Amino acid sequence: MVQTITSLHNPTVKNLVKLRQRRARDRQQLVLIDGARALHLALHNTFPVITLYFTAEVAHTYADLLQRARVAGITLQEVSAAVFHKIGYGDNPDGVLGVASQPQGHLTALPARGLPLYVVTEGLEKPGNLGAILRSADAAGVTGLIVCDSQTDIWNPNVIRASQGAFCTVPIASATAPEVLDWLRQRHIQILVATPSASQCYTEIDLRLPSALIMGAEHTGVSAIWHNEIPIRIPMAGQVDSLNVAQAASILLFEAVRQRRQDQTADTLPGDSVLH
Amino acid sequence: MVQTITSLHNPTVKNLVKLRQRRARDRQQLVLIDGARALHLALHNTFPVITLYFTAEVAHTYADLLQRARVAGITLQEVSAAVFHKIGYGDNPDGVLGVASQPQGHLTALPARGLPLYVVTEGLEKPGNLGAILRSADAAGVTGLIVCDSQTDIWNPNVIRASQGAFCTVPIASATAPEVLDWLRQRHIQILVATPSASQCYTEIDLRLPSALIMGAEHTGVSAIWHNEIPIRIPMAGQVDSLNVAQAASILLFEAVRQRRQDQTADTLPGDSVLH
Repeated sequence: MVQTITSLHNPTVKNLVKLRQRRARDRQQLVLIDGARALHLALHNTFPVITLYFTAEVAHTYADLLQRARVAGITLQEVSAAVFHKIGYGDNPDGVLGVASQPQGHLTALPARGLPLYVVTEGLEKPGNLGAILRSADAAGVTGLIVCDSQTDIWNPNVIRASQGAFCTVPIASATAPEVLDWLRQRHIQILVATPSASQCYTEIDLRLPSALIMGAEHTGVSAIWHNEIPIRIPMAGQVDSLNVAQAASILLFEAVRQRRQDQTADTLPGDSVLH
Repeated sequence: MVQTITSLHNPTVKNLVKLRQRRARDRQQLVLIDGARALHLALHNTFPVITLYFTAEVAHTYADLLQRARVAGITLQEVSAAVFHKIGYGDNPDGVLGVASQPQGHLTALPARGLPLYVVTEGLEKPGNLGAILRSADAAGVTGLIVCDSQTDIWNPNVIRASQGAFCTVPIASATAPEVLDWLRQRHIQILVATPSASQCYTEIDLRLPSALIMGAEHTGVSAIWHNEIPIRIPMAGQVDSLNVAQAASILLFEAVRQRRQDQTADTLPGDSVLH
């Protein structure tokens, strides 16, 4: 039986606090997972959780989670409420916190199953947007999310939180933009670049083809490397000159879902129709 | 010429700080507008701006905005950089801040033009979500946003900021859910309720009809009052059990846009198709 950590000066506690910073996460190649919901998904998806910290107060509430972690060979470490207050995140921490290894996330490790649909984010700044895109990517059943030159790391606690657990259900890769461009071209995946000035509307594109959606940074959009690919726009009826990047990604992803579902169900839903 | 405000103890300065709180906004029926971009849209849309605060440093950069405000009869009040630091919002304030009257927002004041498309939010908690919905509503060209029983007020600074100015381009009304339900029924508007458990997919609905999309609170969804209306769902392929409410609203709104655009352009885009 491992002893309960009660000291705020315990080196493990100090390190868990440090892991809220990117530098420590990058150096140690670790990621923090806050909350029971995300941890359930992490265990279910065999995300490489190493240690699970919990308080005595929640041991009964999350008995299933703790048992599942135990069976998976994950170290369980009880901490006092005061220690959890220090290491937990947000206003209402659940009383459970996991530490996991950062998956390597090479392009080559992305799954090759099914009809490819990738989201590529380039230079995104806001963790909340990256998290929201992950959540929509999960719902849309994408093949993978590819992160290029992000200003925020994918393992930022606010990405993890906004993703509601999708960080461990969506295959994720990181690479430079040139690497991603080469990789997509070699696989003959149509490369669709969200660009407000594009002449072609996204609904005019056959998204039943293997596709990658390139989403640029909040203020500056995509870089020049994508300028030879297919620009697509979302029609804007209003006066605000752009959509939030996560909203735009969701709209594009679910148009792909719509077209692909219609294709599957064309026989049974004659009222529906297919593009082209 | 009005004298520059340089004292942090000036009662106007103290009141501007107070207006960051809902209680003061509600009592005084005022709203703060941060930043040049939002103020440009406010003036362009004759939003009832009363006073515009600015620093000498930005008077040249925003000369157009100040001139436009002057012509519109808005009081211009210069403040010192130290005062602006106190009254401005966020990390990089522009050096311009407006105070406006809160529009009354009665249902009866919503425009009756065109083919109705309303978004109704019920019990939303997060200002960022309400702001993001406003931004997508602007882009989709909705007839109006109707806010019921919101946990956050529509004039919260984070709503204003996330909306990127859409708070003054989208017609907004506030009412109780029963009032909204009656109002929509009287106008024969189909009432579509976003519900994860619905059997009908949103793409199977004819959104070219006058429509209202009912979006429930982040955790609890819609209230029982909507249970006799038409439930619709967004198909979820992943493991996370719900979409963010702002993402869901954007997906539904742009499906309506898609169907309505196809209807308009059916003659010129034979490759496209129309539902039903």
